Amino acid sequence: MLEIDIIAVVPGLLEGPFSHSILHRAAEKQLLKIRVIDLREFGIGQYRQIDDYAFGGGAGMVLMAQPLAEAIRHLQNENVYDEIIYLTPDGETLNQSISNQLSLKSKLLLICGHYKGIDERIRQKFVTREISIGDYVLSGGELAAAVLVDTIGRLIPGVLNDGSSALLDSFQDDLLAPPVYTRPAEWEDMKVPDILISGHEAKIDDWRFQQSLDRTKERRPDLLKDES
Amino acid sequence: MLEIDIIAVVPGLLEGPFSHSILHRAAEKQLLKIRVIDLREFGIGQYRQIDDYAFGGGAGMVLMAQPLAEAIRHLQNENVYDEIIYLTPDGETLNQSISNQLSLKSKLLLICGHYKGIDERIRQKFVTREISIGDYVLSGGELAAAVLVDTIGRLIPGVLNDGSSALLDSFQDDLLAPPVYTRPAEWEDMKVPDILISGHEAKIDDWRFQQSLDRTKERRPDLLKDES
Repeated sequence: MLEIDIIAVVPGLLEGPFSHSILHRAAEKQLLKIRVIDLREFGIGQYRQIDDYAFGGGAGMVLMAQPLAEAIRHLQNENVYDEIIYLTPDGETLNQSISNQLSLKSKLLLICGHYKGIDERIRQKFVTREISIGDYVLSGGELAAAVLVDTIGRLIPGVLNDGSSALLDSFQDDLLAPPVYTRPAEWEDMKVPDILISGHEAKIDDWRFQQSLDRTKERRPDLLKDES
Repeated sequence: MLEIDIIAVVPGLLEGPFSHSILHRAAEKQLLKIRVIDLREFGIGQYRQIDDYAFGGGAGMVLMAQPLAEAIRHLQNENVYDEIIYLTPDGETLNQSISNQLSLKSKLLLICGHYKGIDERIRQKFVTREISIGDYVLSGGELAAAVLVDTIGRLIPGVLNDGSSALLDSFQDDLLAPPVYTRPAEWEDMKVPDILISGHEAKIDDWRFQQSLDRTKERRPDLLKDES
């Protein structure tokens, strides 16, 4: 059982992703427990302030240290986290190997930034790992957290219907997945490759591997270089 | 005004992301119009079938060509798309420059895969661009579509409250963003760097640029190499 707590500024952004499909099933099977904590509950004063202007000027607000620290400490009173992860564009870039690692942990705390980010002092004081889902900027860390939880969640043994299903995915062996086809074998004059309806299991495996390799060479030669 | 249509297998996954925060505001301002189309409406027969086993065997289902083709053609009857984008782990990797480009388009159609992916013939016949949000596997393309729409949506002029806000983000100039701080200047014995409360605008700009550069050198030297 993996428990993931998420501190969010806009918890509503996470409603859809966790109440449908695979993650929902994982929760029902008691394999994954996700809890979303609204940062505003730890806001300051009557208006539950959580953000303020950036020192040094410039557009955009910054999440204040105090509400974040209170939220984190409140959670730490009851939980020991393997990692406290801040989702941020300047973190290490997420890949399947990081997802594999994290799917083996017991308790994770994710912190979603919003606006211009969080006060740097929170990063220095509490955060043990910083992860970026890619080289682009989102309006907040919530979607990044949803992506991270989805990639991790589906790797937990028992979540996918068939355990072998994840093994044929892209990136599991540094290769892109081969093309897939389903019925009908001929559709609008386009035919499925003969090999796939041949019934020769070993030859099909060879073909898929070759297709994976060719596709990776063509589209993502960088993935192959990493291995050498 | 940018219109984005999304063909999804699990439309519920997209509920949260598009009804909150910045994208919701963009829609209210008539700057962005998002429409989610349920692939199952174009499913085959009484049970509205949309997927079937993969030719060649193996675990996992494949989205059938016919329902997707019908959905796409139905939409094409009323719309001319600048791009028909399939979200897939073997697509080109999304980055801020692609998001910038796409934010200037008028009409986009996004196709979310699910399970093992979509029948390859749909990719050959309809898809003009294939995009991956990163080197990891999601349970479906819906979250990837949400991420893509979020990165694009916030770049549309007028969506963010202050137009300059996006310009200081990570990646806009191939640099990571500098650290940010907000009040109080001293928090739990941790001080904001003096320069940020000095009031010297030019010096603050210099400091931020240097911090960006240092952080990029330390964490993402690959971003700097791309420029040479």
